[in-house]
Order: sequence, then structure tokens, then C-alpha cells
Amino acid sequence: MDAIEVITAKRDGHELSTAQIDWVIHAYTAEEVAEEQMAALAMAILLNGMSRREVARWTDAMIRSGERMDFSGLGRPTTDKHSTGGVGDKITLPLAPTVAACGAAVPQLSGRGLGHTGGTLDKLESIPGWRASLTPEAMTAQLTEVGAVVCAAGAGLAPADRKLYALRDVTGTVESIPLIASSIMSKKIAEGTGALVLDVKVGSGAFMRTPALAKELAETMVAIGGDHGVRTVALLTAMDAPLGRAVGNALEVAESLEVLAGGGPDDVVELTVTLAREMLAAAGVTAGKAVSTKDPADALRDGSAMDVWRRMISAQGGDPDAQLPRAGETRDVPAPASGVLTRLDARAVGVAAWRLGAGRARKEDAVSATAGVTLNVKPGATVREGEPLLTLHADDEGRFPAAQEALRGAFEIDGDSGPLPLVIERVA
Amino acid sequence: MDAIEVITAKRDGHELSTAQIDWVIHAYTAEEVAEEQMAALAMAILLNGMSRREVARWTDAMIRSGERMDFSGLGRPTTDKHSTGGVGDKITLPLAPTVAACGAAVPQLSGRGLGHTGGTLDKLESIPGWRASLTPEAMTAQLTEVGAVVCAAGAGLAPADRKLYALRDVTGTVESIPLIASSIMSKKIAEGTGALVLDVKVGSGAFMRTPALAKELAETMVAIGGDHGVRTVALLTAMDAPLGRAVGNALEVAESLEVLAGGGPDDVVELTVTLAREMLAAAGVTAGKAVSTKDPADALRDGSAMDVWRRMISAQGGDPDAQLPRAGETRDVPAPASGVLTRLDARAVGVAAWRLGAGRARKEDAVSATAGVTLNVKPGATVREGEPLLTLHADDEGRFPAAQEALRGAFEIDGDSGPLPLVIERVA
Repeated sequence: MDAIEVITAKRDGHELSTAQIDWVIHAYTAEEVAEEQMAALAMAILLNGMSRREVARWTDAMIRSGERMDFSGLGRPTTDKHSTGGVGDKITLPLAPTVAACGAAVPQLSGRGLGHTGGTLDKLESIPGWRASLTPEAMTAQLTEVGAVVCAAGAGLAPADRKLYALRDVTGTVESIPLIASSIMSKKIAEGTGALVLDVKVGSGAFMRTPALAKELAETMVAIGGDHGVRTVALLTAMDAPLGRAVGNALEVAESLEVLAGGGPDDVVELTVTLAREMLAAAGVTAGKAVSTKDPADALRDGSAMDVWRRMISAQGGDPDAQLPRAGETRDVPAPASGVLTRLDARAVGVAAWRLGAGRARKEDAVSATAGVTLNVKPGATVREGEPLLTLHADDEGRFPAAQEALRGAFEIDGDSGPLPLVIERVA
Repeated sequence: MDAIEVITAKRDGHELSTAQIDWVIHAYTAEEVAEEQMAALAMAILLNGMSRREVARWTDAMIRSGERMDFSGLGRPTTDKHSTGGVGDKITLPLAPTVAACGAAVPQLSGRGLGHTGGTLDKLESIPGWRASLTPEAMTAQLTEVGAVVCAAGAGLAPADRKLYALRDVTGTVESIPLIASSIMSKKIAEGTGALVLDVKVGSGAFMRTPALAKELAETMVAIGGDHGVRTVALLTAMDAPLGRAVGNALEVAESLEVLAGGGPDDVVELTVTLAREMLAAAGVTAGKAVSTKDPADALRDGSAMDVWRRMISAQGGDPDAQLPRAGETRDVPAPASGVLTRLDARAVGVAAWRLGAGRARKEDAVSATAGVTLNVKPGATVREGEPLLTLHADDEGRFPAAQEALRGAFEIDGDSGPLPLVIERVA
């Protein structure tokens, strides 16, 4: 078998055989298939698609390119969540300790941000002392003692996906549902979780701009999870406006702490509780049953989720009592008119936060812990002309003009279209 | 501008702008666009196509990536031929001296073989002492003194095409009409010829399997030539059976010498004369007019073409009187039945010659000067069971079984379908 045989088969619209998929993923990981060959194959996959069988096998081959973690000896069920990425999406931060407080264990391998969406590890790294890297042994120990861990994936997990993801990023082959689905699912299945809830974002701030595309991605991932014995459910959720009122690393940690303290913005609380219930149900843990002690809403109210959070942060070297860093400079963005704020574009806010320093353009860039955007009002509110809609946060005043430019046209006041409902659809 | 912008534009079915084409070819030549990015773009072009405007500009950008030769001061018109490649296609060898004997100059930059079709330089290198490399000055001097030169292209001509051709070869992106047409035409236009005749092969032994595809390629190339001020004509010619009776390097030189001596197989003579007349007409040289002294058929008959050949070979260090090397081993392939030979598959014969050592699988492989296949009968002839149809030539007996295997099913005796006419269609 050789690379050209596999590339031309997909180029000419044929289904790849199991042997072809297994060979090409193995040979690519072993660097026997060159980057330019995989780039041509990725473009052929993007344009000609893959059948369900092909996506399942492709995912399987990527999992088998590395180690697969196993938490079956943990004594309690494992469950995890993955979000396809949104603006202000800090849900993992309150969610992981909440689910752990309700009886399941959460072994979350997370990533860093690229472009206009932030990364969970970048957010947690704004907490003084906290570190993202854990050995597999330390991860298991923390899961046993604390019940929740959010850390960086080791190099041994799905190395084929790691290589392919970096390649797709520079070759215009990111936007392929089979490649997105297999990338996400290979990492999550290799991570060893027993159950998985997918938060598939839809709207201007999301990767999937339409509900139809988001549903296709959700169904593809749910099928792959099922094939691999991971109970998987997907929710399509709104990403037309930012989640909560904070976008940026330390800003989002601060908002997560409000939620863990029983407060916080309604949409963040609702999504945290909804996803937590789905994660517990997928893991077979429901309120009143053997291992479960409580409902997620109660865990937020009674302080037990906050207790897990504090232990989770401490276990990874962070100081849960440390003051979070704050930006040196702030600037308000006033409402251009009076009326009802009907739209606050998620992508524009994400790009503004990125330009303020919260995100990175290339993998090797550093991010600012403090930069970002806070929302003084949410869509649906009545505003008066000149009232500050947003506040920009940066370490350097020179960052403001580019962020203000990104926000041009991002608001609609008194327009016709209302926001999407928070949960648009459930796919199981 | 960046590579991802260009890749995603073509991926999403848009026409590339002039600025995008110019930028990506320039940046690829300068190694600012990576091989994997160009591979993804090449696959997107293969699957989504290019408009006539895009192909013309793409070709232009590849020409401008290097030098363009200029023979306008030569004192006689220049004209060249390019074949898309076939089995037993040695036509350049008798053709170039024949056209020079009739009054035009032929500045042919040629290539080496890859796969089942041979390369003109490989054939000429079977002549003791002959060398393919010439400086531009030596090329001009030889054109002035002899009127014909066949040599290797220097590294300065269309370097973008050189890089892209090597990339396409390993990424399954060869079979794209816009990429084939722009590759051929960028080299031929940079070579500085004033007129060009394209021999577009059709049939099992050719790159283009159907007349419709061959015609699309021919029309694309003719349009590009016209845009660049090179008078261009294309002939679609048959490649369902091998041309002539010899396939292999020294074997094809020997057959070319028969043609230059006024003999040789009818199809080789007919195609040589037909192409020579087209080349002369495209260059504005016709029998009876100012610069022309004779018709190509006469140049073959009266020895003037042979005279040019001898001077052309000598000028590049070759000995026109040297004995050509011969294979140490031969083996006959008998007719499996009696009747009319209705089919002798060109591709199978080409693959057999390749396996005997006449061709190469990778660019860096060496080829045998003596290996190949000779045809004892041509399609249309009546044969008796057991009579030798073909003779295999190799330096080593161990090569025969793989060649015999390649010829399994290559003959049809008493079947229904006759061969294609030699010249199928003319496109101008």
C-alpha cells in the first residue's frame, strides 16, 4: 500500500477501506506518509466527505496511534464534557467540580485557545501557581482524591490527531465535519472517560454557523462515541452572543467563582446545571440513586461544588485564595442609540478580546491573563444612548483601537431578530 | 495575503484572483508557502477546477518564476513539439532534424521518463557519448549551426513548475487538466519557441484515456499558447497500441534511424511527417515559401534529415556511427491463438518495458539503455498460434516473469474493435 493509492481513492470519490485507513494513519504517525501527502488527503476528505463507517474507523485508528487511559478501577463512574468552542465559554470551570460534588469523576483533558475562542487551560493559568501538566499517575490520584481534574493532554494520547490537527490548521482543511468529529472523539475516547456530553455551539461566535451543520457534527460524534462504548449525548447550544458577562482569562475565572458561590449570570448557571445533569445521567448517576448525593443546582447552592473547586485548584499548585490579576487599563464602549439591545455579536466580542491580548494568533504566542471584555448589559436589555455596553480590559492602552474596530457593527439596538434559545436541540 | 486565504477560496469553489495566483506562485517558489499548503491547494484545484482566466494566469506566474529564453535573433523561425507521452513515442528523434532540414529551428527542452512512458533524454542517452545538459549559450550556438537541439531544461526555467511537478507526483494531484496544461505550457513558453504543436495522446497507453478529456486538455493548452503569443496547434493522436515496433531506449533510437534513413514503420513515418508539417506551418514556413526548401517527407527520403541528426548528435558529444548497445537476453512472447490481432494494449507493453528495466519508478532510479519490447506484428495483422508476437529484451533473465505478467490479457485476437485512426482530431 502507498499514500498515492489512498489519496487517489478518496480524490476519486471512493470509500476508503479499513486497511487503507489503518495503514495511512499508522504510516503518517510513523512519518512514512509525508505532511504534503496527508494535506492532499485531508483536502480530498474535506471536499468528498466520509461515510459513517470511514469516520468511525479513522477515529479508531487515531486512538490506536497512542495510549488509551483507563479509569475503570476508580470506584466511581467517569464522565466528561467537550465544547466545540465559544466566546465567554468558561463552563468547564464551574461544571467539573459541580459534577464531582454530585458523585461522578471528571477526567478532563483540555486545550489552549487559538483565534477568537479562549482555551480552558489559558483561563486556569491566570490563577497564581496553577499548572496544566500532570503525569498520568498524578491525574489518577487527583481523580481518586478530589473527583475532578482539568489538565493538558500528554503527548502519548492520539499522536496522529496531534500531528493532523497542526497540519489542518495551516492547510485550510479545518472545516470538515468528519475531520472535526474524529479529532474531538479520538482525544476524548483515548482520555478514558466512560460517558461524554458534547456541547456543540451554534451561531456567529461558533465554528458551526448553522444548526444544520452543528446537528450533522453532533450526530457524527454521538455515533462514534457509541461505537467505542462511551455513552455520548450532544446538546446544540447558542453562541450568537457571548456566554455570561466576562470574556478573557482571569475575567472568566472570576465569573466562574461567582457561579460556584451560588450566583453568577443566569445563562452560565443554566448551562452549567443542564450539562451537569446530562453528564451525571450519561454516567448512570442520578439524584437519589446509590452514588449520587445531590442535584447539580444544590451543589452550587450549598458550597459543595466550591469545595471541590478549591481542592482541584490546590492539587495542581494553584492558590484558590490568591487575588486574580487585573488589567492596568479599561475603556468603556458606549451604546450608539437608545432601545432594546437585540444583538451583541459573539464573534466580534471574541475578536475584540483576542486583539486586547486574551487570545493567540499562533500556537507559540503568549496570552495575557487579564485582557478581555466585560458585558454591562446582555441582549434583551433596554439601554440608553451613551450608556457603557461593554468594558474593554488590556495591559496596554495601545490595544484599544483594534478592539474597538472589531466591535464596529457588533450591536443591534431595537432590531427585529431576538437571540436564540440557550438550548436549541438535544441529540442522543 | 496568506496561503490559507488562497487555499480556502479555491476549496470553497471561488475563482482565484490575479493577485492571489501571482502571490501564491511567487511565495511557493520562495519557499514561503509550504509544500503541505501547496498540496492542499493542488487537490482543491483538481477537485474544483479552474477557469480559463485562472489557468492562463497560473501559467503566466509560473513562467515569471524564472527566466524566459529568447531566440528571436536567430534569423529563422523557431517551432517545437510536445507530446503528452505514450508507449514507443520516439517521434521527437526523427522529427526535430526533419523540421530543421526544412528551414525552421527546433529548440526542444525535453524530459526523462517516469512510469510506463519513456523519456526522450533517456532514449538519446543510449547513444555513446551523448549528453543532455547544455548551457543556454551552447544551446543558441547549436540552434544557429545545426538548427535543432534536444536537451534538458536548466534549473532557471519555470522553477515554480519544477517544484510543483515533483509535489504533484507524490500527492495524487497529477490528473488535473488545469495543472497539466499550465505545467506543459509554462515550460514550453519559457523555452522561447515561437510556435508549438501539441501531440495529445489518447487511449490506454496515454495519460488521457478518452478523446473528450484529451480535447479539453488540448483546447486549454491552445488557448494558453495564444495568450502568450506562441502559435499553438494540437493534434489528438492514438495511443491504444504502441507507436512503431520498438519500445525501449536504444531500441527506439534504432527505429528512429530507420525512419531517418527513409524507411521505418508506417505509423512512425506518418506521425513524423504530419507533425513536421504542422510545426512548419505554425512557424510560417511552408514548402515553396522563402525559408523553406522542402517538404518533410522529402527531407526523410533525400537524407537531409539524417544529415541534421548526425550533426545534432555530434554537437552534444554523441557518436552517430557508434554501435548502439544491445540487451544480453531476449525472450519471445507467442500468440495465444490464430486470427487477426485486433488489440495490442499500449499500457501493458509500456509496463512490460518498464519492468524489463527501460523505465523508472522513482526520479532517482537509473534506466537500462538496452531493455524493452519489440513488436513482430502490429494490430491488424493475421497471426498463427505460437508465432512470436513480441520479443522481450533485458540485461537479466530475472526480469522476464514480471514483464510476462504485465502482458497477460494485453492481446485480443479476432475481436470486434479495431484500432483508433492515427490522427483522431485536429484542434487549432
